[in-house]
Amino acid sequence: MMMPPAEALAFALTRLHDLPALSARLGTPLEAGDIAAILEEAARFAEERIAPGRVEADRTGCALENGVVRTPPGYAALLEEWRAAGWQGVAAPEAHGGQGLPHAMLTSVFELATSADMSFALMPMLTAGAIELLVHHASEDQAARLLPPLVSAAWNGTMCLTEPQAGSDLSSIRTRAVPDGAGGYRISGQKIYITWGENDLAENTLHFVLARLPDAPAGSRGISLFACPKVLPDGRRNALRCGGIERKPGIHACPTCTMIFEEAEGELVGEPHRGLAAMFSMMNAARLAVGVEGVGQCARATLLAEAYAADRVQGGRPIAEYPDVARMLSEMRAVTHAARLLSLDAAVCIDRARAGEAGAEGRLALLTPIVKAWCTERGVEVASLGIQVHGGAGYVEDSGAAQLWRDARIAPIYEGTNGIQAMDLLVRKLPRALPEFLALVEEAGASDPALRGPAEALARAARHLAAASPEEAGAAAAPFLDAAGWVLGGGWLARAAAIEPALAADGAFFLRRLLPRAGARLEEALAGEMAPA
Amino acid sequence: MMMPPAEALAFALTRLHDLPALSARLGTPLEAGDIAAILEEAARFAEERIAPGRVEADRTGCALENGVVRTPPGYAALLEEWRAAGWQGVAAPEAHGGQGLPHAMLTSVFELATSADMSFALMPMLTAGAIELLVHHASEDQAARLLPPLVSAAWNGTMCLTEPQAGSDLSSIRTRAVPDGAGGYRISGQKIYITWGENDLAENTLHFVLARLPDAPAGSRGISLFACPKVLPDGRRNALRCGGIERKPGIHACPTCTMIFEEAEGELVGEPHRGLAAMFSMMNAARLAVGVEGVGQCARATLLAEAYAADRVQGGRPIAEYPDVARMLSEMRAVTHAARLLSLDAAVCIDRARAGEAGAEGRLALLTPIVKAWCTERGVEVASLGIQVHGGAGYVEDSGAAQLWRDARIAPIYEGTNGIQAMDLLVRKLPRALPEFLALVEEAGASDPALRGPAEALARAARHLAAASPEEAGAAAAPFLDAAGWVLGGGWLARAAAIEPALAADGAFFLRRLLPRAGARLEEALAGEMAPA
Repeated sequence: MMMPPAEALAFALTRLHDLPALSARLGTPLEAGDIAAILEEAARFAEERIAPGRVEADRTGCALENGVVRTPPGYAALLEEWRAAGWQGVAAPEAHGGQGLPHAMLTSVFELATSADMSFALMPMLTAGAIELLVHHASEDQAARLLPPLVSAAWNGTMCLTEPQAGSDLSSIRTRAVPDGAGGYRISGQKIYITWGENDLAENTLHFVLARLPDAPAGSRGISLFACPKVLPDGRRNALRCGGIERKPGIHACPTCTMIFEEAEGELVGEPHRGLAAMFSMMNAARLAVGVEGVGQCARATLLAEAYAADRVQGGRPIAEYPDVARMLSEMRAVTHAARLLSLDAAVCIDRARAGEAGAEGRLALLTPIVKAWCTERGVEVASLGIQVHGGAGYVEDSGAAQLWRDARIAPIYEGTNGIQAMDLLVRKLPRALPEFLALVEEAGASDPALRGPAEALARAARHLAAASPEEAGAAAAPFLDAAGWVLGGGWLARAAAIEPALAADGAFFLRRLLPRAGARLEEALAGEMAPA
Repeated sequence: MMMPPAEALAFALTRLHDLPALSARLGTPLEAGDIAAILEEAARFAEERIAPGRVEADRTGCALENGVVRTPPGYAALLEEWRAAGWQGVAAPEAHGGQGLPHAMLTSVFELATSADMSFALMPMLTAGAIELLVHHASEDQAARLLPPLVSAAWNGTMCLTEPQAGSDLSSIRTRAVPDGAGGYRISGQKIYITWGENDLAENTLHFVLARLPDAPAGSRGISLFACPKVLPDGRRNALRCGGIERKPGIHACPTCTMIFEEAEGELVGEPHRGLAAMFSMMNAARLAVGVEGVGQCARATLLAEAYAADRVQGGRPIAEYPDVARMLSEMRAVTHAARLLSLDAAVCIDRARAGEAGAEGRLALLTPIVKAWCTERGVEVASLGIQVHGGAGYVEDSGAAQLWRDARIAPIYEGTNGIQAMDLLVRKLPRALPEFLALVEEAGASDPALRGPAEALARAARHLAAASPEEAGAAAAPFLDAAGWVLGGGWLARAAAIEPALAADGAFFLRRLLPRAGARLEEALAGEMAPA
């Protein structure tokens, strides 16, 4: 059976990473016992408070009634419990009501929460992104006003980027912001795919909106960032509303809203025309968070499948004992562990960078697109294996297995599609940071003899592709990123298996059975430009 | 853009296979022009009559009301049109109202119908299975009574196999059949996952039910097959009813029923205690049909994604021109073609076997599990790529892309899970038919220099695994089957590309970029027994 997620997270943060030492350097010392205790408590909260409502919340879904999004019945009480337990502020500054713990702790808490109910967890996840944004880009006055209600989870935060004509290409955003003459702005435009954009849960919703000022230059350098609350400080409703919610294959309990701004009052966050840069500075954290959603879905799918396979008897024995079912369960476990360790490497880098460690920022920049894309692909795949382990019951919603698969499918699209992540890694970052990437790969290659060959092949491909034409690099990006995920994830799992006997079987399974996929994807990446279709 | 499916099917049946000559040998001569014309007409029917209602039917779904399953509004008229057009009887005996055309034509028609709406197409697909069953196992009297209404699609047929405790292991079936003293039987028991088991569309529903006679030995040798109509010849309702329908992630417009038999009147089909063998003789056709569902989903996903990518502009040009989107579209096209050609190889074998061709039966037996499992895995994968091409719009149901993915996910489970297929290939069939399998692989290896290496690796693995221990074979089965699919599908696509310039780019893409996956799966298959978890 799989090592319980909280235990696996604590193992990684104390025995693979030295979070106790790192947290001490950050001025918020945590001992190994503290880390384990916090994660145990987060797991208890996730299992006992969040998870039990997951299937019912999916079945109920959301509805838009007279401009208000009605959410599933249990969510109001659940959000109250989440607030009371203080999970929202785990990594937020103590000055604004948070606990100031390392980012890696927040990442771990969110893996556990997402694993319990992705629809619900998306609200605090986006609020955490809003907190991150304000911490880095708000004025002192803004921080004092806006952070405390977000940190306490009284308010939720949203990111209003996409417009119907501007998806992956944000430079074509049309939403306008006009100064109101009193230091504020009036925002007008339509934003789509706004997660938790409108809801009947939070006291207030703070929208972070990308828009153009009247004097803005065209393109991505003319976009500014504004904060627009649903309810204004004097209690009036702001001139913004939900125009509709999407019908989606999954995350039914999480409203995906069209938001309409009709001269809504807003305030500028950061410098004029620098909104995209501000948004992108928090994007790294958001992308990492989405990767962690993939990990959470992997973990839940594995737990469900293990329980079913142990229980379901065919031909006189539990199906877990049949070799093909055992194969699927082993793949699920091994991939879950590798994805978790890969995502924690990135999460710890955020803390290491904050502690001023050389190289941490650069490592984070390289890992972020890999974590986002590789872990979310694996989330869908492992959830699909989970359905398969259940057989016919897997395609019946009562099992809960299909929901994980439906929910997980959004993650490869969120926060920059996985294709965008692959281009970010191979076209934008690799040419500037080839030595840093090669060092990462070498580290993985050194972790086990089985990894030496694949790591060398990955390094060779990186050297070649860092200098390739845009056409060749574009066609190579996705399989290259995928190969990097298998090698780097495998490297972490090998290191873990080497010191923790409970992970030895999963490590061996990964290296012998799954790692060859890296080679196949590298062959694909090195096949050259696309022939004309 | 992808070659239109009807054109690709006609190309395969006339230029890769000689269906005109084969059909002449079968006594129902079809010229190349006839084949193309029938497929054009089937495509027109699928596009103009079936496909337009797909998204709405999914949205409406089915409901059980007072024992009657209410199906989407458009389906009654659609079934009338399907009947009037005579598609149900394409391959059925002329003596019973069919057209007696080759099975490959029926397979092609079902690819097109499934591609238009899988939920709807499942009803005629199962009816076709019932026809097949009666053709091979019914008495003359039974055939005369029961075949005509099935061939005309006035009735629909179901397969009642699974029970709550008997899924992959049918030997533990408990449903009982007691002779009524007048040559008939009374059937009692509960069957689950009965596709189209109850509905408000067909005049009558004929259930084929596996059950045990009072004197039946235990295990799979004591199971008999019975035909139980919903409405008896004298107009009375039979003592069987729908106890519930399942809530599923996809095929919402197709009711998946629990059927309760309470001393229902039935007649024996075939010999007593030989029901499982009779059911399995039709299972090959059904498994092939499910594989073809995967092909249909691939084709529709590709058409939708191509249209969206040509239309959607970002950064001043259609997204189809971005290399990573082009990569996804190419993969979708290449896999669709390969899966179609692989499934047609098996379909043509059915006709070749009927024409008495040596080796056709054995080839079909080897190809069936590969088509079932490989094509259905690809169906889910290609549908998922289709979502990804759409970006955020792919996760919104309006696009129709997510529905394909949700619908396609049942196919790896239906008619024996893909794990069962893999065991059937590697454990049951390969040891008895190794030379025949090696000949198939050699044929693929000879089709292009790029295939020689992978084919040799597959042959080596087959020789090793045909003599492996049950534990090693069990753990190797799924990746081995998958590798076989990549090699054999690649072989067909290479042969097609060699004679049809319109397929050259897809062929090259497959061989250079996708074929390495075969090697990775073979490494996995050869990794030995599973370590204890």
